[in-house]
Amino acid sequence: MKRIAILGSTGSIGTQTLDIVAHAPEQFQIEALSGGYNSQLLIEQIHKFHPKVVSVATKELAEKVSSQVSSATKVLYGQEGLLEVAASTDADFVVTAVVGSQGLKPTMAAIEAGKHIGLANKETLVSAGHIVTDAARRRGVALLPIDSEHSAIFQCLNGENRKQIAQITLTASGGSFRDRSRADLEGVTVEQALQHPNWSMGAKITIDSATMVNKGLEVIEAHWLFGLSYDQINVLIHPESVIHSYVEFVDNSVIAQLGNPDMRVPIQYALTYPDRYPTPTKKLDLAAIGKLHFREMDFERFPCLRMAFESGKQGGTTPTVYNAANEIAVARFLNGEITFLQIEQIIETVLQKHDSIPTPSLDAIHEQDLWSRDCAASIQF
Amino acid sequence: MKRIAILGSTGSIGTQTLDIVAHAPEQFQIEALSGGYNSQLLIEQIHKFHPKVVSVATKELAEKVSSQVSSATKVLYGQEGLLEVAASTDADFVVTAVVGSQGLKPTMAAIEAGKHIGLANKETLVSAGHIVTDAARRRGVALLPIDSEHSAIFQCLNGENRKQIAQITLTASGGSFRDRSRADLEGVTVEQALQHPNWSMGAKITIDSATMVNKGLEVIEAHWLFGLSYDQINVLIHPESVIHSYVEFVDNSVIAQLGNPDMRVPIQYALTYPDRYPTPTKKLDLAAIGKLHFREMDFERFPCLRMAFESGKQGGTTPTVYNAANEIAVARFLNGEITFLQIEQIIETVLQKHDSIPTPSLDAIHEQDLWSRDCAASIQF
Repeated sequence: MKRIAILGSTGSIGTQTLDIVAHAPEQFQIEALSGGYNSQLLIEQIHKFHPKVVSVATKELAEKVSSQVSSATKVLYGQEGLLEVAASTDADFVVTAVVGSQGLKPTMAAIEAGKHIGLANKETLVSAGHIVTDAARRRGVALLPIDSEHSAIFQCLNGENRKQIAQITLTASGGSFRDRSRADLEGVTVEQALQHPNWSMGAKITIDSATMVNKGLEVIEAHWLFGLSYDQINVLIHPESVIHSYVEFVDNSVIAQLGNPDMRVPIQYALTYPDRYPTPTKKLDLAAIGKLHFREMDFERFPCLRMAFESGKQGGTTPTVYNAANEIAVARFLNGEITFLQIEQIIETVLQKHDSIPTPSLDAIHEQDLWSRDCAASIQF
Repeated sequence: MKRIAILGSTGSIGTQTLDIVAHAPEQFQIEALSGGYNSQLLIEQIHKFHPKVVSVATKELAEKVSSQVSSATKVLYGQEGLLEVAASTDADFVVTAVVGSQGLKPTMAAIEAGKHIGLANKETLVSAGHIVTDAARRRGVALLPIDSEHSAIFQCLNGENRKQIAQITLTASGGSFRDRSRADLEGVTVEQALQHPNWSMGAKITIDSATMVNKGLEVIEAHWLFGLSYDQINVLIHPESVIHSYVEFVDNSVIAQLGNPDMRVPIQYALTYPDRYPTPTKKLDLAAIGKLHFREMDFERFPCLRMAFESGKQGGTTPTVYNAANEIAVARFLNGEITFLQIEQIIETVLQKHDSIPTPSLDAIHEQDLWSRDCAASIQF
């Protein structure tokens, strides 16, 4: 019986994690959940999974939740509540599925508390890869990737000697605008940007797929997760998202992980690693799919991916600034304040103004994160 | 330094094995070679690799070879010579690359002598899978697959729990006639049949690719190598031969092995397992390939594959008879005696006449093999 805490249980990854747990109740027990602002869904989850502790965003929401659930569930709120869900329960496994840079502190707290991590929050490694991987090593804690590309690479490396990796390739569907030229991106709407061709995901990550920022964050994350140089990490456009990613070894043998686009497979793999159990998902049928397509990544078409590689290579606080500027830019786009192409302009401008600090502390990362947000919010067109 | 003996060093797999050895002389030493009838090539190999023992088909050829090489190389001949190359040298690894059912006895001798096996002769497992896998287990000897499909499956199973396999899929290019209907197979020539679209291989195996007998033998071999039931083994047409085969696990995650069609990758993997070293092969470039195609296997179009599954499921001496009838039929086709479609008619007729013997001894296998050959040779059209 694995005891699990989920940070971000009401989001896309959180609800799918609970779907997996519900499918194998004899294997998993939910110790704690944090649910942000969606108190209604959190209340339903409490009724179904009976966590000992939950946390929401505000005191008011905590009071509302508390009034509707049994007293067996302790209801907390705010940053303190989130940290308690992450680190102060009997859970041995913490799924970090909160969105954005707010995932860093609770993930670090969970690692320091000796809990294994199912990592769905990519900003944790993007901002503080050197600190997080060090802490995990020191505490003997596993960082198990939950998003489909890193889970694919992780699965392909089973039983292999990592020194014999030549390179890895992260596949990219190309997102909602993959078949548009740059000229065709002028004037696209929020609704159009939210139509991802393959994956059903949250709004922020769907926009990040269209800009290729999502793949950029994955590149930086892969650098830290697998200890690879940026020259060993490639990105390939593969519209069907069936080959989720692959590893090429020094002998030119390639091992790939494939499947239908369904996050529940990588989520469950992180929960049950190194074992595999049936999932409530569909079998892959390559004959029915018929064809798989591949094309070279175009860094001119997707400048956000170029900037991610540059930020990762520069290191220090630059990936933090890249990520934070993007978070603000995406929020401004979803809010109707700026156009789609202005997302990349904001990131580029903020990066140009930034002076990178090498091997930063968590405090320095936090400061530069705030600076980047302010800077990105203030840019006018 | 790995000491290697090669049975069938002058054939397609044998010469490619020596290519790998020549590319990494610090890793490998050639102890012994057997070369059948191609004495000229064997003499060149002796001059280059200095084996202590070699064997050829006949006494006359042995005398010819002996007169042209240094006395440091002992030259033997016939079945006895082949067995000595297999079992009586200091080699710790034996590549069994002789073609057809003649591979069985020397492979058994090598296993009994405690040598690890690089298995390129599929008929060994097809005819005597129960005996060979038992002997390997008893002697603690590894059976490392060399052909590309089984090597792919073997690589995909690295670090995985074999009990968690749902099924495996062997890919099939479809061979030289993959785009022809059955009607279009009337009157095809030997030369046409020998034009394999992807792989450069020996004549017999190229014909077996066109009839799908090759895939059928691989299905039976996979049954024994990986301990799978026939219901767990699928075949999928994949014209590009880039995905060499794949494993689907119980969680619906699929692990595949990919590469350009080049036998030197699986050959070297068997030689260096579990490690990987650079090979003198080309990197896979999926963007340059652009598209991969897949289509359902059609058992009406390829009745030899249907007969392979049926033979495998029946077991006993039936796979031996299937294989031996095919060997004769292919020889008769290559010899211009029969048409391409008569290959399958011969196999079907011989199978119909055969009374299968369950769990046969090596002697019973040998007898039924001879019976099948006689029967296949005597069928007139």
